[in-house]
Amino acid sequence: MVEVQNKRVILKHQLSGFMKETDFEIMVGSVKLGVGDASNAVLVKNLYLSCDPYQRSLLTTPGSPVPGFGVGKVVSSSHPGFEPGDLVWGMTSWEEYSLIIEPKILLKIEHADMPLSFYTGLLGMPGFTAYIGFFKKGAPKKGETVYVSAASGAVGQLVGQFAKLHGCYVVGSAGSKEKVDILKEKFGFDDAFNYKEEPDLEAAIKRYLPDGIDIYFENVGGKMLDAVLPNMKTGGRIVVCGMISQYNLSGHEGVQNLIYLIRTSIRMEGFRVMDHYHLHPKFLDMVIPHIKEGRINYLEDFAEGLENGPAALVGLFHGRNVGKQVVVISRE
Amino acid sequence: MVEVQNKRVILKHQLSGFMKETDFEIMVGSVKLGVGDASNAVLVKNLYLSCDPYQRSLLTTPGSPVPGFGVGKVVSSSHPGFEPGDLVWGMTSWEEYSLIIEPKILLKIEHADMPLSFYTGLLGMPGFTAYIGFFKKGAPKKGETVYVSAASGAVGQLVGQFAKLHGCYVVGSAGSKEKVDILKEKFGFDDAFNYKEEPDLEAAIKRYLPDGIDIYFENVGGKMLDAVLPNMKTGGRIVVCGMISQYNLSGHEGVQNLIYLIRTSIRMEGFRVMDHYHLHPKFLDMVIPHIKEGRINYLEDFAEGLENGPAALVGLFHGRNVGKQVVVISRE
Repeated sequence: MVEVQNKRVILKHQLSGFMKETDFEIMVGSVKLGVGDASNAVLVKNLYLSCDPYQRSLLTTPGSPVPGFGVGKVVSSSHPGFEPGDLVWGMTSWEEYSLIIEPKILLKIEHADMPLSFYTGLLGMPGFTAYIGFFKKGAPKKGETVYVSAASGAVGQLVGQFAKLHGCYVVGSAGSKEKVDILKEKFGFDDAFNYKEEPDLEAAIKRYLPDGIDIYFENVGGKMLDAVLPNMKTGGRIVVCGMISQYNLSGHEGVQNLIYLIRTSIRMEGFRVMDHYHLHPKFLDMVIPHIKEGRINYLEDFAEGLENGPAALVGLFHGRNVGKQVVVISRE
Repeated sequence: MVEVQNKRVILKHQLSGFMKETDFEIMVGSVKLGVGDASNAVLVKNLYLSCDPYQRSLLTTPGSPVPGFGVGKVVSSSHPGFEPGDLVWGMTSWEEYSLIIEPKILLKIEHADMPLSFYTGLLGMPGFTAYIGFFKKGAPKKGETVYVSAASGAVGQLVGQFAKLHGCYVVGSAGSKEKVDILKEKFGFDDAFNYKEEPDLEAAIKRYLPDGIDIYFENVGGKMLDAVLPNMKTGGRIVVCGMISQYNLSGHEGVQNLIYLIRTSIRMEGFRVMDHYHLHPKFLDMVIPHIKEGRINYLEDFAEGLENGPAALVGLFHGRNVGKQVVVISRE
């Protein structure tokens, strides 16, 4: 069996607080280009890797490559669902080649006319997260008001566009003027603001949504959630998708305004997108025509090469990315 | 028109922190025993008053009588829905006679064969709150596990019994050995514990519900909620009914474990029982046969006379009551 070089991004030690580039190292090993005797195994050549906030919670095993979503091409397979040459997306590792045994989340790419990198975002886990969260958990009605935090991120930018397509009024927040401009000009948000320039977040939200919020799509947590709760309308829904402000803290910020759940009959619901993948084909049927006909825009931020992966991942927690952060291993 | 004495419990000044008996005073005025020219008005002779935690938030107008739920008898009415002699329950004030103009929550008592005081609790707002919260928001399934905090209170004792009747496994917590014994012996909880004797609440809940909680009925808030969140099962529901631990605090305790909403797909939902009163007759049809046939027990704690009202209300926030706290003005 042919053996080739396999470059990997390894977690050096347990993380503490905000992750840093020096928590990772690039190591070069080798890999046999076959699944060998392993049953239900797939050897994947990784092409694009996805940087997602939730990865913070997976980084617990020093010495292992960074786990995460990615797009790849099957090199060898003993799994009945995959053949060499298949394009796939799903859970993989930050390395050139991954041997995935008993894959749990690995889907064949049926619509290969779309850019492959889209399967790390728009068409993959983040886009599907936006879809399940907004439509299934948010239960939106035409004319309702929607507020999205971390709105220029991989999930937020799509939630806002789904909400507009559904006839909602959408406001987003992000952490720079550049991102705020993109929200309004590229993604069609009705309004947007830079949360870093608002000393009183609760008042800022009130200014942009004076009649209150029907659906809050939560990507941030902590102080942002506290500022949102008094601004919710009666019967409002909070879709809890992520809490990026909290992932690097050892003790989480306390949320003080939960009493509003009672006062205004709010439903607040978290979800794991992994419980919903059976609906992914339905999602693609909905979203691909919107993309092809120009009704959905999408912004990617590419880091070139595995070597630049750690900086891209770290940058996510400082808002350095503009749009979906992708690491390109190979464009083949 | 006959004029008679009208004793009242008046809020003396704005509350700050925990309420005290000295925040209230008894004043004796007079009242005309008729509605006069007021249209859609009902003059009610108050018989039983209800002490409920949510009243803390209504106590904002010094010089006014304490607002709250009660049971009374109509003395005079210009409202088409009520006649002199009708027994009623709903929003009234802490005084012997109340002139209620344009009543919003005032219901005629159709089942007068039940003890009238039950309409401050079991058959009134708290019982109906338990019903709506548990069945409509909790969406219970047979065999599920239920945890109730402040379980011996007016709402909690009924949630536990509804859960048992529905085939669930129910654990409750309360603040004394006496209350814990009552939960197990009188209300049929499968198990119960004294939260004051548990230095590690999260571990205590884990001990009593090692496989996790499907439905948490939240009456307490703050640290209790933080201890519950890591103990929820995937797909669990938190019915947010009250947060008695928070009502007397000027700054609320921060809840740190909301990340579990995502990790275990939890739905957390608050509600206002006032939005559901159209279902009250259906509730009575369900609960009255259970009471008559001895399948539901109910415990009341009576304070005799308006003069003892402030102490009874204050006592609620220190857990002094055992069962539903009622103030008796008149048993007539």
